Amino acid sequence: DSKLKIFTCNSNPKLASQIADYIGIPMGESHTTSFSDGEIQVKLSESVRGCHVYIVQSTCGPVNDNLMELLVMVDALKRASAKSINVVIPYYGYARQDRKARSRDPITAKLVANLIEKAGAHRVITMDLHAMQIQGFFDIPVDHLLGVPILAQYFRSKQIQNPVVVSPDHGGVVRARKLADFLNAPLAIIDKRRPEPNVSEVMNIIGNIEGKTAILIDDIIDTAGTIVLGANALMEGGVKEVYACCTHPVLSGPAHERLENSPIKEIIVTDTIPIRSANPTSKLKVLSVAPLMGEAIIRVHEELSISKLFEIE
Amino acid sequence: DSKLKIFTCNSNPKLASQIADYIGIPMGESHTTSFSDGEIQVKLSESVRGCHVYIVQSTCGPVNDNLMELLVMVDALKRASAKSINVVIPYYGYARQDRKARSRDPITAKLVANLIEKAGAHRVITMDLHAMQIQGFFDIPVDHLLGVPILAQYFRSKQIQNPVVVSPDHGGVVRARKLADFLNAPLAIIDKRRPEPNVSEVMNIIGNIEGKTAILIDDIIDTAGTIVLGANALMEGGVKEVYACCTHPVLSGPAHERLENSPIKEIIVTDTIPIRSANPTSKLKVLSVAPLMGEAIIRVHEELSISKLFEIE
Ligand SMILES: Nc1ncnc2c1ncn2[C@@H]1O[C@H](COP(=O)(O)O)[C@@H](O)[C@H]1O
Ligand SMILES: Nc1ncnc2c1ncn2[C@@H]1O[C@H](COP(=O)(O)O)[C@@H](O)[C@H]1O
Repeated sequence: DSKLKIFTCNSNPKLASQIADYIGIPMGESHTTSFSDGEIQVKLSESVRGCHVYIVQSTCGPVNDNLMELLVMVDALKRASAKSINVVIPYYGYARQDRKARSRDPITAKLVANLIEKAGAHRVITMDLHAMQIQGFFDIPVDHLLGVPILAQYFRSKQIQNPVVVSPDHGGVVRARKLADFLNAPLAIIDKRRPEPNVSEVMNIIGNIEGKTAILIDDIIDTAGTIVLGANALMEGGVKEVYACCTHPVLSGPAHERLENSPIKEIIVTDTIPIRSANPTSKLKVLSVAPLMGEAIIRVHEELSISKLFEIE
Repeated sequence: DSKLKIFTCNSNPKLASQIADYIGIPMGESHTTSFSDGEIQVKLSESVRGCHVYIVQSTCGPVNDNLMELLVMVDALKRASAKSINVVIPYYGYARQDRKARSRDPITAKLVANLIEKAGAHRVITMDLHAMQIQGFFDIPVDHLLGVPILAQYFRSKQIQNPVVVSPDHGGVVRARKLADFLNAPLAIIDKRRPEPNVSEVMNIIGNIEGKTAILIDDIIDTAGTIVLGANALMEGGVKEVYACCTHPVLSGPAHERLENSPIKEIIVTDTIPIRSANPTSKLKVLSVAPLMGEAIIRVHEELSISKLFEIE
């Protein structure tokens, strides 16, 4: 029976140690630092020979540093004779570059998948990929976890009266449908349309929202442009109040300021990405994915199905 | 007959355009920028279908960003149907992580080679690799250029009287030997030795240096510790003056200050890495590798031998 070990780099050490705590094992000892010129140096301070190793590392910003840390760590573990190398990527960066949206676009989400495989990973555990198709960019097993049950649990405990779950665009309807099911709530969709070229977008709301408490849901909130425009449209459409939630709080550029100044009452996110802003919005509520990730690692290690993790009581 | 095109990212655009000038073609139009969250975005603004493309990009600091730019650019060119993708890496970063120096070390120089190949490169043109063995980390052709003739040319034109070429350690003797041959000068070697454990190193100089003008040569000057200690030892050993030279001016951390305060008279480097310090030492003399790189690209494109590039008149 082979040993399970957890390692991490610098993107999200807090989440990694919470996962290790959940599993009930100490963190594997390693040090990922930089040389004077900025090149990454990985030191493994304990043997991994014959071990099943899980590396917890989100490829959030600084994305290229975090990705390279992960790749160098995989390389070190491979050469140190780990029995299996499982990369746990709570937030998979570059996921929005998943197709040639314009001619001559790279498909960086696929490039990253290739790099991770080439480095020597045997399995990926990730969460709420921006596009499900990214699973197919890998030729190794991908265990894909969902944040919706964690978000749903929170809204249930809040006992929100008369809720409506709202998808900010057509791309997010499946996710919003799931949250609506968990909450036994109706669904609405924000339908952006450009009536004529060079005329600004109209935010049309499909579904009945008047007097309800809206819960906007997305996978990623990045600059918060989409979500704040959606919240404004919902307020104009007559909702009582607006909550917003997402799995991955990228929150770059003007995000915190925009959210702070928006009509959104509370923004519920998870800790797949740590909040790094010097001046974060006061409206954030962070839920931990550590129990979910920890349970997934235990079940993968014991070769059990992980599908039961997507249910809530 | 297929078309030759040159592209670049953000590590060294000046060198890239000097290379294009040398070849006599315009730079390929592309834009490598970042999204708000720091993810790299590459836009190719012209067709590369059927073209032989050369991407000029050093993997100097910020090393992970520069490496990822290169990989994403290769991915974009591959998907845009370039006929061949030739990566020109004047300075190959991570080259000092070329072996397991300690147990459980990664071999990042090999990882990087794998990543470049996996992204889709067909050929590498590079210069003064820290370890020649890195050529064997690739399974695609590697054309390896030398900086010594460029440095030698400079010292010849200076007509230095009574020179001695000095290698700062035993690892650099082959390179120093080449420079000495070009200059018809004798060779000396700094032989660091620790007489007993926990006793500080002794700088012993092998070879006759008294009254001569020393020319220290290394492939990389990073924090400048080695080269400055070497220069001090040479001065104590009775040289008249000391020059230092290298191909790759990494110059991180205290390098500029150390060089400024050292007995070194002039530091001759090349432009494989741009000088980025806010406060660079006044002793720097930068020679361009653009003609060498340009000539190498022309010859590779025309399927001619590149060995004649390592001679000087
Ligand atoms: N990091 C990023 N930040 C903002 N936009 C991005 C990013 N990566 C890709 N995109 C763009 O987002 C679009 C894809 O998003 P989506 O339509 O939501 O799948 C494409 O037009 C991409 O060019
Ligand atoms: N970027 C770097 N900066 C400083 N030292 C490094 C770097 N990369 C690798 N090294 C170390 O340099 C040594 C190899 O240098 P060398 O003996 O000159 O080939 C190894 O001990 C490495 O751990």
